[in-house]
Amino acid sequence: MEIDLNADLGEGFGPYTMGEDEAMLDIVSSANVACGYHAGDPVIMDKTVRMALARQIDVGAHVGFPDLMGFGRRQIQADPLELANYVVYQMGALAGIAKAAGHRVTHMSFHGALGNMAAASYELAEPLVRAVAEFDRDVIISVSTNTKIERAADRIGVRTANTFLADRAYDDQGALVSRKLEGAVIKDRAAVLARVKALLEEGSITTITGNKLKMPVQSILLHGDTPGAVDLARTVRGVIESAGGRVVPVSKLMR
Amino acid sequence: MEIDLNADLGEGFGPYTMGEDEAMLDIVSSANVACGYHAGDPVIMDKTVRMALARQIDVGAHVGFPDLMGFGRRQIQADPLELANYVVYQMGALAGIAKAAGHRVTHMSFHGALGNMAAASYELAEPLVRAVAEFDRDVIISVSTNTKIERAADRIGVRTANTFLADRAYDDQGALVSRKLEGAVIKDRAAVLARVKALLEEGSITTITGNKLKMPVQSILLHGDTPGAVDLARTVRGVIESAGGRVVPVSKLMR
Amino acid sequence: MEIDLNADLGEGFGPYTMGEDEAMLDIVSSANVACGYHAGDPVIMDKTVRMALARQIDVGAHVGFPDLMGFGRRQIQADPLELANYVVYQMGALAGIAKAAGHRVTHMSFHGALGNMAAASYELAEPLVRAVAEFDRDVIISVSTNTKIERAADRIGVRTANTFLADRAYDDQGALVSRKLEGAVIKDRAAVLARVKALLEEGSITTITGNKLKMPVQSILLHGDTPGAVDLARTVRGVIESAGGRVVPVSKLMR
Amino acid sequence: MEIDLNADLGEGFGPYTMGEDEAMLDIVSSANVACGYHAGDPVIMDKTVRMALARQIDVGAHVGFPDLMGFGRRQIQADPLELANYVVYQMGALAGIAKAAGHRVTHMSFHGALGNMAAASYELAEPLVRAVAEFDRDVIISVSTNTKIERAADRIGVRTANTFLADRAYDDQGALVSRKLEGAVIKDRAAVLARVKALLEEGSITTITGNKLKMPVQSILLHGDTPGAVDLARTVRGVIESAGGRVVPVSKLMR
Repeated sequence: MEIDLNADLGEGFGPYTMGEDEAMLDIVSSANVACGYHAGDPVIMDKTVRMALARQIDVGAHVGFPDLMGFGRRQIQADPLELANYVVYQMGALAGIAKAAGHRVTHMSFHGALGNMAAASYELAEPLVRAVAEFDRDVIISVSTNTKIERAADRIGVRTANTFLADRAYDDQGALVSRKLEGAVIKDRAAVLARVKALLEEGSITTITGNKLKMPVQSILLHGDTPGAVDLARTVRGVIESAGGRVVPVSKLMR
Repeated sequence: MEIDLNADLGEGFGPYTMGEDEAMLDIVSSANVACGYHAGDPVIMDKTVRMALARQIDVGAHVGFPDLMGFGRRQIQADPLELANYVVYQMGALAGIAKAAGHRVTHMSFHGALGNMAAASYELAEPLVRAVAEFDRDVIISVSTNTKIERAADRIGVRTANTFLADRAYDDQGALVSRKLEGAVIKDRAAVLARVKALLEEGSITTITGNKLKMPVQSILLHGDTPGAVDLARTVRGVIESAGGRVVPVSKLMR
Repeated sequence: MEIDLNADLGEGFGPYTMGEDEAMLDIVSSANVACGYHAGDPVIMDKTVRMALARQIDVGAHVGFPDLMGFGRRQIQADPLELANYVVYQMGALAGIAKAAGHRVTHMSFHGALGNMAAASYELAEPLVRAVAEFDRDVIISVSTNTKIERAADRIGVRTANTFLADRAYDDQGALVSRKLEGAVIKDRAAVLARVKALLEEGSITTITGNKLKMPVQSILLHGDTPGAVDLARTVRGVIESAGGRVVPVSKLMR
Repeated sequence: MEIDLNADLGEGFGPYTMGEDEAMLDIVSSANVACGYHAGDPVIMDKTVRMALARQIDVGAHVGFPDLMGFGRRQIQADPLELANYVVYQMGALAGIAKAAGHRVTHMSFHGALGNMAAASYELAEPLVRAVAEFDRDVIISVSTNTKIERAADRIGVRTANTFLADRAYDDQGALVSRKLEGAVIKDRAAVLARVKALLEEGSITTITGNKLKMPVQSILLHGDTPGAVDLARTVRGVIESAGGRVVPVSKLMR
């Protein structure tokens, strides 16, 4: 049983820090690095990539809207083809930083509002995923199951890694329950750990309606910027390893 | 006799245009494309790269300070290693855009105040050139002769293309005369054309003191954003071709 | 018969220009000045304000989304109260520049996507207009008729100036026809001038369905950044003055 | 014995926080608020101003270079008159936010590299101070003694408040010792408190060479973003009050 543990890191900017990157990098097997649009800057990207390289873990591009003030969490109604250019710009920038540091970008994911919008709209997901493929057909896209991003990647022929959010509820179709609905975020620590354990042992999750649902998952996303995040991440890793599982970078899993 | 003609293009931003990019792209053999820090954005970069590809001309990264409001023309006293990260970020971003479009980045140059500072300071030029080499050892750096950038590139082992500024005066050491001094900018059109012709026929220029100086040149820089720029560029190209010369992208010249 | 002529000016940024500000300032009686979020910067704001002062014309704040790359034309789904803070920031900045130059801000309007969103949503218009009133209850808000901005201003007790867009079609309720619909933009120059004339002489416009509609108007908006804009503006002013009308800054009209 | 305690606050940006603003606001009598150029944004400015108002303490504009990524700590060689426009823009923006909240801006200071450059150059200080005066002649400028900012303010006729940095060494002329020199920053907590006490009781400080120097001071600057900052600030306030002093907003001191 092998699985990837990933977290969104490098989310500081200039003098500002966010989350405990260094501690998280000791726990995860792949880092999703902000690329300067919704967070991150070249100096932080370089540091994050070098720390990842030293730990031999994967680096992915975490791309978002050009909205530092809103942390990429606000929907921007922009032309999908222009957004595709923004995606390639960010991926290229991180790939450049990684190459100069002797590392490489193995995967990518869409951050915040951009991710939510692309997950819900094939018209947006299609050009974005196509741009990713045109930039690098070998890149793996981290997706939530049952999203338009996954569907676009399947059609275009880009590999995807299903990523499980341990602290979020899913519906019976395997889609994330909107944060606006009650019960969408699972705050009870024991419940989160139980979900990880069930996923590892049975390959399934319990949906918000109480049903069991098979969910083939390559990766678990850990949050890095909430109180207790590092501790929870360490415990999740412990749960996996106690169950005989192995934490492996996503690019090694998908070979 | 082969020579490269290049110009700084893609210097618009969002709704703003600068210069006549499309007309200039029909004349030059290589385009130095702004990368979003002092000018340019992903959409303009993509358009410029695709227009260059259609004309089979070279694309280079024109990297500058993060100062859109000042167009990269104001000195910023930043840490050289942080600036090196900025350089790689910008080059990577353009390389990503180029790769997605089916093109590639063959060369680079430093814009405005960053270029002036690096030309004058080995302490700055060295880490910047080293970063370029770490990103891509095959990239050619466009330089003015007798600058610290050239010296750093020589020591680090990166190829350089000497670029002649036809409308600028040089001193007896082959260095550009500061714009602050009288006679630094040659505004007389006939004089500019005469300098190009002399360079092509004799391989030398007349310095500001009236001396002849051998100047081995691979490239001529044309300005794209001044009144009459397109017309002057077209005439310079005519002068070269009338003299039996051939205008060739810098990457083909330096093979 | 007195009417205000206004235009959106100061829309350059750093090295970039947009429109022919100086020529337009000789024609209009009030200038809507971009405040650095969707366009404009402190240097351009200062220049525009001083040119307006020299011509004794009004200065208004033209406030928009923080989206220079998209020129404020893309909808951003931000918290209305945060947007209210952005509006006050921009108005304060221009008021500061105006005060230092010996001038003052008399009116304001919402630019681009922010204007469209506020025109359509009372939930957005209300906090924005309230913020304007809290900043300066004497400021006049330029509005299109029959918008939620107008309604919010009426309820909160801020004066509004109805602004007529001579080159745009209106429906039978006096609302602007969406640009997406055919016939929304009137490109025929003679038709535009005829509309201005009818408005001045009869106080009414012909709607897109061919009906006459009374439209009490204090101001006519001239576009400054389209080809032929200056010439059209000059002609509109001529039409007004030939008809015996007088072009008067909005703050003098509304005293 | 009355003295102002001030701190640089509101230095977050978007999702990013810096320092413990709320705790510091309970201790100081005036807040120097970042205005969106080197730090701060409209939402944070509004929050900070309202918290200051609730505590009846002064709000000042802390203006800096447009360099969020460098936190305004990097010198930018810009035209002094353009920088003067930037200063007014920032002051106006904060004044707008304050006015809308029912508060007002009483003082201002120059942040980081802009402050250092203006302190050292009369050619820069003069147009900046003149711009402050043109914006609002009643604003008090917080200065270090023996700087070009103080001299420009004296000549132009703007009031200044001498601000003592308790954890920084001064030379025999009363100028701050450069951070680059050993002993410039006083890290020993007891020494910092002893300096505050001596200043209050004797009106003098001990310079880096061991001499006593009279220093008329209206204000003490507390750092808000270092570890232990809140605790040190609270202790400094305790020292003042134990010595029978009263902590008073700068605008009340200078009436």
